[in-house]
Amino acid sequence: MKIGVFGTGMVGATIGTKLVALGHEVKMGSRTANNEKAVAWAKKAGAKASQGTFADAAGFGELIFNCTSGAGALDALNAAGAGSLKGKILIDISNPLDFSKGMPPTLFAGNTDSLGERLQAAFPETHVIKTLNTVTAEIMVNPGRIGGGDHVMFISGNDTAAKAKVGEFLKTQFGWKELVDLGDITTARGTESYLPLWLRLWGALKTPYFNVKIVKE
Amino acid sequence: MKIGVFGTGMVGATIGTKLVALGHEVKMGSRTANNEKAVAWAKKAGAKASQGTFADAAGFGELIFNCTSGAGALDALNAAGAGSLKGKILIDISNPLDFSKGMPPTLFAGNTDSLGERLQAAFPETHVIKTLNTVTAEIMVNPGRIGGGDHVMFISGNDTAAKAKVGEFLKTQFGWKELVDLGDITTARGTESYLPLWLRLWGALKTPYFNVKIVKE
Repeated sequence: MKIGVFGTGMVGATIGTKLVALGHEVKMGSRTANNEKAVAWAKKAGAKASQGTFADAAGFGELIFNCTSGAGALDALNAAGAGSLKGKILIDISNPLDFSKGMPPTLFAGNTDSLGERLQAAFPETHVIKTLNTVTAEIMVNPGRIGGGDHVMFISGNDTAAKAKVGEFLKTQFGWKELVDLGDITTARGTESYLPLWLRLWGALKTPYFNVKIVKE
Repeated sequence: MKIGVFGTGMVGATIGTKLVALGHEVKMGSRTANNEKAVAWAKKAGAKASQGTFADAAGFGELIFNCTSGAGALDALNAAGAGSLKGKILIDISNPLDFSKGMPPTLFAGNTDSLGERLQAAFPETHVIKTLNTVTAEIMVNPGRIGGGDHVMFISGNDTAAKAKVGEFLKTQFGWKELVDLGDITTARGTESYLPLWLRLWGALKTPYFNVKIVKE
């Protein structure tokens, strides 16, 4: 499958590398066609990896992963352009973290609005699916690393068919065992608002390699 | 032990009833000395249950549970008075829920501030410990109801000794098996910010009887 990955940070590189390892063709997009980190990533990841602008990656991919920072997400999608994103599924992993007030970061959305909703509102002809944003990058693509994979991933989005496709992708490609469909894209407020707890747990547990499992009656 | 419980809602009644069943003497506090719901609760809960004003409950209790609504928490503590709360542990279960913008509720604190911090700042000589606010009332006092009690409770507070006492109380009295000490009272931002996800999970799971378990490396 041809996949576009927006973002050259740890999340983009981890997702991109895993997708190439799974046999997919991956184009990493950034603001410039030959971003240094993207070029280095593509060289390391192998023949099925390439890089380009956000528009190049969007045009290339049948499926798009948004792995930019939260603050850079809307700009990345705008640079890609509504035309090349039209009708496609965009898996939004970004979190609305605001580092301007010191550490730990606060949120610039998540209470009465969410970043997922902002992206969906700005690109109504794209299927924005919010998921994977509640774990560290390595757990996203390798949930089996902790607890034998016995923990949960949340998923939010308006389009039921697109959400089902992403759920299937997460299960078959990354190995997720349990998904909870929270509902439409407004439920991204829930998972984005979870970040402050996630950050405090990272501090308390002294490792980012953790996740939650749902225990219910 | 003599315990004061602020609030006559479902949380206050559930906590109060459990404490009486455990053999404690409990005074339920509200704005008026003979609040109808508090009188009815005390009559039903038995000889060790009584009711009074917030100040009465604060004066009575060696330990205080704040089970008011988030919006009413500061008023309740103000009505109790700093004198009667001085040197005591106040277990703050309230959440900063704002119902004014429709359902599900949004938060009036939790991002750059938390309700737990506001209470601690207003009553610096009281040990405010934030905990129990991440599960429904029945699970607070009976964690064994789901998953054999194999799930987690978070705890936040500035005073290490007070936090240890509350942790011991939760374990020995309510049956909690696993506590995660998130740190000082600023970490209440984490658990308060989790509420939007909790509310969405309630919708998705179709039951409030659930909690999370930490899975880590």
